[in-house]
Amino acid sequence: MTTVHIAGAGGYAAAEAIRLLDAHPGARIGTLMSRSGAGTRVCDAFPSLPHLTQTFDDFETALPQVAAGDVVFLAADRDVALALTPKLLAAGARVIDLADTFRLEPHAHGAVYGLSERYRDAIAGANLVANPGCYPTASLLALAPLGAFADRIASIVIDAKSGITGAGRSPKLGSLFAEVEGDVRAYGLGGHRHTPEISQELHAVGITAPMTFAPHVVPLSRGMLADIYLIPRAPLDRDAILATLRRAYASSPFVTVFDDGRAPYLPALEKTNEAHLAVFEESGIIHLLSGIDNLGKGAAGQAVQNMNIMLGLPEDQGLGAVRTVVG
Amino acid sequence: MTTVHIAGAGGYAAAEAIRLLDAHPGARIGTLMSRSGAGTRVCDAFPSLPHLTQTFDDFETALPQVAAGDVVFLAADRDVALALTPKLLAAGARVIDLADTFRLEPHAHGAVYGLSERYRDAIAGANLVANPGCYPTASLLALAPLGAFADRIASIVIDAKSGITGAGRSPKLGSLFAEVEGDVRAYGLGGHRHTPEISQELHAVGITAPMTFAPHVVPLSRGMLADIYLIPRAPLDRDAILATLRRAYASSPFVTVFDDGRAPYLPALEKTNEAHLAVFEESGIIHLLSGIDNLGKGAAGQAVQNMNIMLGLPEDQGLGAVRTVVG
Amino acid sequence: MTTVHIAGAGGYAAAEAIRLLDAHPGARIGTLMSRSGAGTRVCDAFPSLPHLTQTFDDFETALPQVAAGDVVFLAADRDVALALTPKLLAAGARVIDLADTFRLEPHAHGAVYGLSERYRDAIAGANLVANPGCYPTASLLALAPLGAFADRIASIVIDAKSGITGAGRSPKLGSLFAEVEGDVRAYGLGGHRHTPEISQELHAVGITAPMTFAPHVVPLSRGMLADIYLIPRAPLDRDAILATLRRAYASSPFVTVFDDGRAPYLPALEKTNEAHLAVFEESGIIHLLSGIDNLGKGAAGQAVQNMNIMLGLPEDQGLGAVRTVVG
Amino acid sequence: MTTVHIAGAGGYAAAEAIRLLDAHPGARIGTLMSRSGAGTRVCDAFPSLPHLTQTFDDFETALPQVAAGDVVFLAADRDVALALTPKLLAAGARVIDLADTFRLEPHAHGAVYGLSERYRDAIAGANLVANPGCYPTASLLALAPLGAFADRIASIVIDAKSGITGAGRSPKLGSLFAEVEGDVRAYGLGGHRHTPEISQELHAVGITAPMTFAPHVVPLSRGMLADIYLIPRAPLDRDAILATLRRAYASSPFVTVFDDGRAPYLPALEKTNEAHLAVFEESGIIHLLSGIDNLGKGAAGQAVQNMNIMLGLPEDQGLGAVRTVVG
Repeated sequence: MTTVHIAGAGGYAAAEAIRLLDAHPGARIGTLMSRSGAGTRVCDAFPSLPHLTQTFDDFETALPQVAAGDVVFLAADRDVALALTPKLLAAGARVIDLADTFRLEPHAHGAVYGLSERYRDAIAGANLVANPGCYPTASLLALAPLGAFADRIASIVIDAKSGITGAGRSPKLGSLFAEVEGDVRAYGLGGHRHTPEISQELHAVGITAPMTFAPHVVPLSRGMLADIYLIPRAPLDRDAILATLRRAYASSPFVTVFDDGRAPYLPALEKTNEAHLAVFEESGIIHLLSGIDNLGKGAAGQAVQNMNIMLGLPEDQGLGAVRTVVG
Repeated sequence: MTTVHIAGAGGYAAAEAIRLLDAHPGARIGTLMSRSGAGTRVCDAFPSLPHLTQTFDDFETALPQVAAGDVVFLAADRDVALALTPKLLAAGARVIDLADTFRLEPHAHGAVYGLSERYRDAIAGANLVANPGCYPTASLLALAPLGAFADRIASIVIDAKSGITGAGRSPKLGSLFAEVEGDVRAYGLGGHRHTPEISQELHAVGITAPMTFAPHVVPLSRGMLADIYLIPRAPLDRDAILATLRRAYASSPFVTVFDDGRAPYLPALEKTNEAHLAVFEESGIIHLLSGIDNLGKGAAGQAVQNMNIMLGLPEDQGLGAVRTVVG
Repeated sequence: MTTVHIAGAGGYAAAEAIRLLDAHPGARIGTLMSRSGAGTRVCDAFPSLPHLTQTFDDFETALPQVAAGDVVFLAADRDVALALTPKLLAAGARVIDLADTFRLEPHAHGAVYGLSERYRDAIAGANLVANPGCYPTASLLALAPLGAFADRIASIVIDAKSGITGAGRSPKLGSLFAEVEGDVRAYGLGGHRHTPEISQELHAVGITAPMTFAPHVVPLSRGMLADIYLIPRAPLDRDAILATLRRAYASSPFVTVFDDGRAPYLPALEKTNEAHLAVFEESGIIHLLSGIDNLGKGAAGQAVQNMNIMLGLPEDQGLGAVRTVVG
Repeated sequence: MTTVHIAGAGGYAAAEAIRLLDAHPGARIGTLMSRSGAGTRVCDAFPSLPHLTQTFDDFETALPQVAAGDVVFLAADRDVALALTPKLLAAGARVIDLADTFRLEPHAHGAVYGLSERYRDAIAGANLVANPGCYPTASLLALAPLGAFADRIASIVIDAKSGITGAGRSPKLGSLFAEVEGDVRAYGLGGHRHTPEISQELHAVGITAPMTFAPHVVPLSRGMLADIYLIPRAPLDRDAILATLRRAYASSPFVTVFDDGRAPYLPALEKTNEAHLAVFEESGIIHLLSGIDNLGKGAAGQAVQNMNIMLGLPEDQGLGAVRTVVG
């Protein structure tokens, strides 16, 4: 039974982590650190967790309670993360950072990039994991196994659609119901902040084709679909790509590659750590679809998966069984 | 391990039942009978269940497979239910009817009304259970324990809000996205078909005050909130009502009565078998709120709860743990 | 051509007022005062108004431009409204306050309560109008004509459902998409701040029965439905009430009383100044339904209607014709 | 005053046409022909048009009423359209077909393709107009002016997002609220039925690059965004493309090309005949965005625009002013 603390526990990814950890047979929730929410009950901060009456702590009170062998989920600003991490590691804790502090050049930070299906072995030995963003997770699950096709790809277009929880729980105009409802909002065009993270991992497998990445907010609370188009330089064989993906994930419990004409259905992925992939082709252009729950495989689910790998637990423990908490 | 068949397996309540039964440690899914869907895979009929490749059977093929000791969830039209039930009972199966065939005057049909928290003992010995409707479930969980206050209640107003899955999965104009979105639709006013079912159970506890029941469709897929107003003939004490409700459900795993100012939050109830109750008062009028998932406690969840009671299993088996199916 | 200024122009009601005034044949938009938005273009602050490139001014720059004969729509905090109003009136402008500063005991403030259909004559002669709130507007349009039935009404239950724009455009947790979607949120129970405003006007027509008012947020951007239940002390005749309402609004362009079984359909009211009423009965309890657009008849639409009345213009000018602005 | 009949008046595009025509100063609604709805009032069939009490006619009764000089909006199945059109033309009526009967090779049918901004002159002299589909309209408004860049374009990716009204009003499973909500549904992949219509018009301007077209249903009632990616064979200059588009639409009242960093905001386009375009660039790939209301410029709005052109009326008559019908 490992104690897991969450530092920066007020957001949607943290709520999802709390939900998962509360039901995890190999973990118990330690402290929940929140600057603004200290003293508040979880059930009051998150009405989606009505049975959790534990209160949030401030960082000062909670940090000394982190002990050797504990795990800390970090969902804090860059400055806080940079200041806290060395202390937590020094205390003997393992750290999984859910924000983007360590994602670029993770090795320079002594971190391992936490795309579980790619870096399982390194994660198993890591003390600091940079948990990937939701857009990179959806994109890379489809693209990273395709290194063998790299020299046939002329360009990559990623048109991604995300639920609004990806924008966080801090109140801002663009996240209001009346701003999100009725629209499909393309944003951050001409150079999104997630492109470098995707490029970094594609380069690692030899894919260096020019890429454009266009994120959209759609009227969903959670869920993400990435439509990925591979423009061929030389013919790309849809069946070969499909076979490569199916082979890559043959033993991964969370990634399913459809080969029967189905496309991802986002509600089926809600509150899961799963990813659903599909491959189509038209006019020689390969069309990959990758669906995840942005808060699941795109955030807290993958963090728990990485924790399981780090602790030597079954990879799907606490993830295959999403327990409803009954008072 | 009990084999559970579903007869009439094409609707939303059936899909929820399949999801729950697939994860139930004491049950295995037998046949799934569907007139229109025979031969189709579950995952194709219900993209929300992407890992279930079992196919639907027609009734003729499947019925002979129902054996003594099996359970049958019946979600069929009245005529089919009336024709099938005697045969299933004769074959030694237990039947839980999710439609409204046996709800009014259940004893005349040899059935027990399946409001689990009220009729636990009778359900335990029943072979035929009439599973309550979602509106009656939400309403009666709040009202049925209040018999002691009956002579103080002058009138009852129930203003209920339901997700659209309550209207079923058969395509009809009023269930289209573009008809539901943007509206709050009051319907069936001046005498809704669920009023008799509610009245029947209220009369059983001595509550005979005039009642109006106004159902509304709100832009939700699932979830139900019943706002129930008790107009006093003699003063009604909010604290006494609250205490009565808390006592009534003290040992019920699925019903929570808030006493801290919270009102039900429907997303917290989604895909659960829980009910959340609250009590407020203004100008002497008592305001009860009762929230459920119309497909959970309002349909398939309660059916599984009743099955557990009938089979002598722990009441919350397969309901406290909502397993994500991993391929 | 009257110049209309808006003071406090950053919210949803202000955006709707800008949209209406921009298309109003008898009005031209003067200054748009915003503390936080000064210097911003309307089209950038409100993407729903893509063709309006006018910029917001700060109060200091704009106030001196208010001239005698102008109209000012005030959508500001109480303190600002109290400070500003005397100056604006002294400058010879007419003021319509869209917030709640002057709604209670309006006469004590030298104001007229701006429920257009009730106080047309007083509004025509007013310099300061307290524009009603959306909940009171929906409730009072149905109830205020029923004074003749007052002594037959034992209790009143108002169960109201509102789109989230009623909560304003300032970012707050409860207005986020991911908090509103999937829920029906009862709030402010046991004494809502709008009850006194409703009571004040009901008392004015002799209706003093105990009342409970329960507001709900539903997953809509705009739209409001009030379900109003009249519990009888002596028999209430549905047909007599219907006839009374139809008589009351026979010459009102914006209020339609259905007598053919229809209930209000909120999308039909969107961006209009209309109200749709219906009357049903069950168990002797009268059920009134009143639907409006909370930003239309519940805010900016009624403000324009009141402006028309104050200026001696046709009451529906600029309201019957919702012009699409073409660049 | 021209009489306009609608044949096949039961769908969403027909409802939008009725709404527009009812407010059109140069048109009056003649007969509304509906096979299934004959005898029904418009306000009962379409609650969004609560003030229209005209009833639908059957075809047999209505067709003889079509007179020379009238206009007929045809929204019927292919067989009906093919049978009816010669008779209507013979009677001296002009016909605008909103379905896809005449869109491919329109000249073979004696029709003009009704993309108003491209074929204004031909439309002005036409008796039969094939009104474009919503996907082609959104795509072609952005692409058709770019013929001068044709030899620099290596591939075209169109990732389109549509509200569900594009799927029609006939009840079908995939259009149910509970199937659309929560998902982003890619469909018809690997060869959509609208690709030929887009290709036909692109070929007409010399653009023959391989193209993939991926339509998606998003949880919207109405609204469409097409994200169009141009993969370069030789460098494509974003500013030159932007300038070309702005020139192309300089005198078009309904097409706005943003040059200030804005992307289309779909709610601003709702119930309008407008299109909003924007151009971005990343990694040399040009990203065009084109937003419309699928029922407006994508269907009924463009049909009215074409009618105006055919009748010699101002092109935006009845379209710039969207009148709210007041009883």
